[in-house]
Amino acid sequence: MSVFRAVLTDVSLLRDAVDTISQLIGEGIFKADKDGISFNATDRAIVAVVDFKLDKNVFEVYEVSGTIKMGLNVDSLLQILKRAGAKDKLELSLSDDESKLNVKMVGETTRKFSMPLLDITEGEVPSPDNLDFSTKLQIRTPVIEEGVSDAAIVSDSLVFESEDDALVMRTDGDSSSAELRVDKNGGLLSLNGKPARSRYPLDYLKKMIRGARIADVASISFGKDFPMRIEFINPEKASMRFLLAPRVED
Amino acid sequence: MSVFRAVLTDVSLLRDAVDTISQLIGEGIFKADKDGISFNATDRAIVAVVDFKLDKNVFEVYEVSGTIKMGLNVDSLLQILKRAGAKDKLELSLSDDESKLNVKMVGETTRKFSMPLLDITEGEVPSPDNLDFSTKLQIRTPVIEEGVSDAAIVSDSLVFESEDDALVMRTDGDSSSAELRVDKNGGLLSLNGKPARSRYPLDYLKKMIRGARIADVASISFGKDFPMRIEFINPEKASMRFLLAPRVED
Amino acid sequence: MSVFRAVLTDVSLLRDAVDTISQLIGEGIFKADKDGISFNATDRAIVAVVDFKLDKNVFEVYEVSGTIKMGLNVDSLLQILKRAGAKDKLELSLSDDESKLNVKMVGETTRKFSMPLLDITEGEVPSPDNLDFSTKLQIRTPVIEEGVSDAAIVSDSLVFESEDDALVMRTDGDSSSAELRVDKNGGLLSLNGKPARSRYPLDYLKKMIRGARIADVASISFGKDFPMRIEFINPEKASMRFLLAPRVED
Repeated sequence: MSVFRAVLTDVSLLRDAVDTISQLIGEGIFKADKDGISFNATDRAIVAVVDFKLDKNVFEVYEVSGTIKMGLNVDSLLQILKRAGAKDKLELSLSDDESKLNVKMVGETTRKFSMPLLDITEGEVPSPDNLDFSTKLQIRTPVIEEGVSDAAIVSDSLVFESEDDALVMRTDGDSSSAELRVDKNGGLLSLNGKPARSRYPLDYLKKMIRGARIADVASISFGKDFPMRIEFINPEKASMRFLLAPRVED
Repeated sequence: MSVFRAVLTDVSLLRDAVDTISQLIGEGIFKADKDGISFNATDRAIVAVVDFKLDKNVFEVYEVSGTIKMGLNVDSLLQILKRAGAKDKLELSLSDDESKLNVKMVGETTRKFSMPLLDITEGEVPSPDNLDFSTKLQIRTPVIEEGVSDAAIVSDSLVFESEDDALVMRTDGDSSSAELRVDKNGGLLSLNGKPARSRYPLDYLKKMIRGARIADVASISFGKDFPMRIEFINPEKASMRFLLAPRVED
Repeated sequence: MSVFRAVLTDVSLLRDAVDTISQLIGEGIFKADKDGISFNATDRAIVAVVDFKLDKNVFEVYEVSGTIKMGLNVDSLLQILKRAGAKDKLELSLSDDESKLNVKMVGETTRKFSMPLLDITEGEVPSPDNLDFSTKLQIRTPVIEEGVSDAAIVSDSLVFESEDDALVMRTDGDSSSAELRVDKNGGLLSLNGKPARSRYPLDYLKKMIRGARIADVASISFGKDFPMRIEFINPEKASMRFLLAPRVED
């Protein structure tokens, strides 16, 4: 018999992560093993990969037999997690017949939710680790948010361009343009590699930067007309990583 | 000549009550007599009864000749009451020709509104008093709000079930479920009668719990496949009572 | 070669003014000359005139050669100005080829926006100065806002009526009515001229009172079935003036 049971006193990290995932992915497989809970999937349009890990350290109680795979509707899970009060203790567990995920919230009242496990085929998901990025940088996420919001008034894509000591985010519309330049005097914490330039879809970037709720510094890797990897890492607790295909120009 | 004139320094109780009524009833008869102002009507679908009383104690000035019946559009009245400022003195009165309700707000400025009296037939309204409920309980309204909001992510109805010393609110959707259990360690203040179980429509419950703005404890009475009575009572000031038909299961 | 360059440390006055203008006018000519920046245009329905001036004193740096006329989409300009952070220094300038307005924001990052100059024909705009108003008054703008919001629940127009020592704003719907009376004990600061009465469209008034963000006292001039002039003046800094055609009754 498979066992999975995990108790959490602060639901915010899990809820924020599921909220971010739900922006990109409708349903997918949450995997629980001895290290913690993970989620790894491609969006329907195969433009983005989400790779999320929640360390077992985050849980007060964490029990699992082997590897448990739970196919879940991400938005339904989010709706349940949003019902947890700030002082509630949250328990996730596999139902005895292994057909449902149970979510229990214990506070002044005791509340039990259950949602069905879905039969989801595990597809091939590109790994964010095996790519040869030419440029790597670390940046405060509010700067990325600013660049993305600036661009939204002009166009639906955003060019990232690294120079020797600065990152430039640039958009050109029919006759308008927006450009943000940040260097180490701003929120750019580090920049390595050779100058590169690539264009990415704005709507995906907008959804991915919600990962900022997990960590306020993002590690970004990209190249010339190359995928971008964005990583939000909260050490020993959680990591939310994205891979985003470039919009290659004609 | 009929006379009705009532002056109020704090409009919030009346405005909140009219707001709650407006969720369920489009137009109806507000009755003013020596005890105060009352409103008693069935919703259009004849699923719910609203029974509201505002005691004459609440008014600074209260004058009425006999019983005055004023047919009013509830939402129009609400829109006017919402225009009152926190420091305004509010005066309700019947116009001289008895065709309108006048609403005067006196603060730094003097504002006068008038709205027409409607010719509404007074229907038969079931009384919330003449039913033989098997279960009665008192509960903090935030608990009911929580149970109703939990249920909304699963289904459109909610089962109330009383046990020996606990109240359970339960919903089952196609494959999901939600359940809230509260006892005297939570927000359940009292529970009397024998175990009962009945299902009620969620949309009505959601509207009725807005009555929580009148009192933060609700008295709930129900039975087995039986109507539910919900009462919010602010002693010597106001009472808002509802009767709600059960959704009897096949 | 034409030169225009203006640097601003507090963007709020300009942004609020452009926001107010954008409610009424889609695109128009911003004029920069030795006195500052001005905007003067009629709305598409030719019901209202907007006359805005921003004094060069407001700018930290202000350079202009002669008179520069820049045809701009007002909403696009607003969207850019809204992107400025509270601590950003804002620079407006004409591009070298005189085809664009550049907007630079310097804070922790450096951001550059550009928007195209449009070829807009300068129409004849009635001046708010050459009219013979019979009544002039000064009033705190929250009172006007209150009268306009009161009226909105009854009708789509508002009658302004001046008496010897009071201003009355009155609306009559099919069977409902609203009336606000203010005198010197309320927010009416001064009132001169002979009694007058005129009706104005509510939607325009609602948009114009957003000018309250420039000054919290409005100077209002009107007459009998006559245009209304509303002026919000922030001395030495900015003035926002409107002219509004009356809705003459049959």
